[in-house]
Amino acid sequence: MSRFWNPKIRELEPYVPGEQPKMDNLVKLNTNENPFGPSPRVLQAISAETNEQLRLYPDPEGVQLKKTIADYHGVQPSEVFLGNGSDEVLAHIFQSLFQPDQPLLFPSISYSFYPVYCRLYGLTTETLDLDDDFAIRPEDYQRPNGGVILPNPNAPTGRFLGLKDIRRIVEANPETVVVIDEAYVDFGGESSIPMVKEYPNLVVVQTLSKSRSLAGLRVGFAIANEALIEGLERVKNSFNSYPMDRLALAGAIASFEDEDYFQRCRQSVIGQRDKVTEGLESLGFEVVPSAANFVFTRHPDHSGAELARQLRERSIIVRHFNKPRIDNHLRITIGNSNQNQALLDALEDILKQG
Amino acid sequence: MSRFWNPKIRELEPYVPGEQPKMDNLVKLNTNENPFGPSPRVLQAISAETNEQLRLYPDPEGVQLKKTIADYHGVQPSEVFLGNGSDEVLAHIFQSLFQPDQPLLFPSISYSFYPVYCRLYGLTTETLDLDDDFAIRPEDYQRPNGGVILPNPNAPTGRFLGLKDIRRIVEANPETVVVIDEAYVDFGGESSIPMVKEYPNLVVVQTLSKSRSLAGLRVGFAIANEALIEGLERVKNSFNSYPMDRLALAGAIASFEDEDYFQRCRQSVIGQRDKVTEGLESLGFEVVPSAANFVFTRHPDHSGAELARQLRERSIIVRHFNKPRIDNHLRITIGNSNQNQALLDALEDILKQG
Repeated sequence: MSRFWNPKIRELEPYVPGEQPKMDNLVKLNTNENPFGPSPRVLQAISAETNEQLRLYPDPEGVQLKKTIADYHGVQPSEVFLGNGSDEVLAHIFQSLFQPDQPLLFPSISYSFYPVYCRLYGLTTETLDLDDDFAIRPEDYQRPNGGVILPNPNAPTGRFLGLKDIRRIVEANPETVVVIDEAYVDFGGESSIPMVKEYPNLVVVQTLSKSRSLAGLRVGFAIANEALIEGLERVKNSFNSYPMDRLALAGAIASFEDEDYFQRCRQSVIGQRDKVTEGLESLGFEVVPSAANFVFTRHPDHSGAELARQLRERSIIVRHFNKPRIDNHLRITIGNSNQNQALLDALEDILKQG
Repeated sequence: MSRFWNPKIRELEPYVPGEQPKMDNLVKLNTNENPFGPSPRVLQAISAETNEQLRLYPDPEGVQLKKTIADYHGVQPSEVFLGNGSDEVLAHIFQSLFQPDQPLLFPSISYSFYPVYCRLYGLTTETLDLDDDFAIRPEDYQRPNGGVILPNPNAPTGRFLGLKDIRRIVEANPETVVVIDEAYVDFGGESSIPMVKEYPNLVVVQTLSKSRSLAGLRVGFAIANEALIEGLERVKNSFNSYPMDRLALAGAIASFEDEDYFQRCRQSVIGQRDKVTEGLESLGFEVVPSAANFVFTRHPDHSGAELARQLRERSIIVRHFNKPRIDNHLRITIGNSNQNQALLDALEDILKQG
C-alpha cells in the first residue's frame, strides 16, 4: 500500500494465474496449455518475420490478421477485434460494453478473472448459481442487468451449453450485451459466431492460446457486429495503439492457414480426454462431462486439496480452487498420452496409500 | 456510436498514431523508428525461442527480463515494471498513480497520448505552456496537481530538460507522482533513473522501441520505488496476467546484453542528427536543439502542411501536427544516411520551386 496509489487501486484484488513453475521433469497440467506445439507453419512464419524489420512498428490495425480471422469464420474484418491475448480483449469489453447502472450477470462458478475486471472498471455483479450438475440455467439470465458474460464451455467445469440455450439468453437481453467467452470451444463445443449476424448485442471471444497452442504468443479476438467492435477499437486506441507485435501477427495468421494441423491436434486432445475420463472414473472419480481440454473432477472419499498436494509431491501440477462448492474438485489439463498416464498412475498410487 | 457503448466510451477521442503506409520505396521518417535493425543477438534469441514451447504461457512476472533491466540500470528487480510497449506502461500509470481530485500537469506541447489517457481514466488536466524556445519551465510545475508527466526529451520538440530542473520539479511535488517519460533519452539526454532511489514519488518510463530498434516487438518498462511498482502490478494483474509474450521477453533480454551494438547505433543516429540539422539550417530552416532521434523544424517562408504534402509526393513521409503553435513545424525522424540525404535533397528541390 502506498499513499501515491489512486484510491480505486487500493480496492483491487488482482487475478492470480496458475503458476508457471521452473521445475524440471514437471507434468504441468494446471493452466490448460495444449500438449502439442504450434503448427510448423506458425514457427516458419515467425522466423520469416524475425529480421531487421522489427525496428518498425507493427500494423496498429492488424488488418491482415483481421482479414484472416474474418475469412475463417465467415464474417467481415470490421466485425473482428484483436487483442494481446483474450484477457486483454475481455478487459476492453468490460470497460466499454457493460453498463455500470445494473449488475453484470455471470455464473457463480466461472472464469475467476471476471470479478477482477468488474472491480477494475467499477461494475457491480450478480452471480448466478449452477444447477447440481454444474450446468448453467439459462432461465436465470432474464433479470435486469448491465450485461451478461458466460464462458462456453464453462471454466473450470468444462460443461458446454447448447446454442439453443445461448440463443435464449441473447434474446432475453436485447438491451444489453451478452458475451460468450469461447476459450475452449474447439475441444468439443459449438461456436456462437454464426449468430453474431442475427444479434447486435452478441459478442464472441476466442483465443489462440488453447486449441492453437499459442499461449506463449498472446493472441485473442472478439467477433461482434461492427458497432460493438467500433466501441472496442475506441478503447484500444485510447490505451495502446500497437497491442500486437509483428511476430504475434505473423504467427497468428499462419495458424489459421494450417487447418489440417489444427484439426489433428484438437481431435487428439479430445481422444485423450476420453481416455483420462475413463481412467479417472475407473479410480472412483466423478468427472463433469467436458467439452474442453481439461476435466473437472472429484473423488468422493478424498480431499481435493490433499490430492493436489500429493500430486505435486510427484511433480504433477493440477489446479485446485479454494472456493465454495468446488474446493474438493481438481481441474486437470489434458496432456499428451505419457503425461495423462503419469497422472492416472500417480492417482492410483495415492488412492492405494490413502 | 451504439446504444450498447458504456457512457464513458462515447466521450473518448482515441490517439491517432503516425501512419504505417504500405508503399514501396518509402522514406519513412514519421514515427521515430530506428534506421538500424535490432542487434543480431536479439534475432538469435528470438529464433531460439521460436519452438514448440510457444504452447506454454510466458512467465507472467517476466522475472528474467526484470532482473536484466534492474542490473543494467543499477536498481532492484522489484523496482522494475514491464509492459507491452511503453504506451501500456503509461496507461497503467495513468490509471493507478495519478489522483483524480486535482488536475494532472503536463506541457501543452508534448506526447499527444497523455490527454487521451486522461479521458479514458477520468482525470482532469492542466497543460502548461513552453517558453518561446519550446523549453519546459520548471517553475510552472509548482501548483496543486494530481500528478505530473513530462517527456524528456520532450516530444515532438526533442528538447532535453536538465536533471537539475527535473529534480526541482520532483522536489516541488512531494505529495504526488512525477513521471519522466524517457522514450528518447538514449539519443543525447541523461536519464533520471539514478534519482529513483532518492524520491519515492518519481517514476521513469523507457521503451525498447526507439534506441533498441524494437518498435515491432512491443516492450517498455518503468522504474520507480517498490511501492509504486506494486501499485502498477496490481492494475496489470487486474487487466492481463501475461502482457509480454515469450518472444518479446527473450528479444528484450538479449538487447540489453549487446551493449556494443546499442552504443554504435545510438552514436550513429546522433551523428546523423547533427548532419540533418546542419543541412536543414543551410536551407534556411530553424531547428529546435534535439536530444532525440528526430528534429523539430520549420521554415520561416513555407507552410509545414504544404512541405509535408510535397515531401509525400516524393515518397518521403514526415509527421505534421495540426495543432496551435506547432502547425508550421515538421517532426522529422533521423533515418540512415541515404534517407537523410534524400530528405535534404527533396527539401532543397521543393524550396527552389516554391
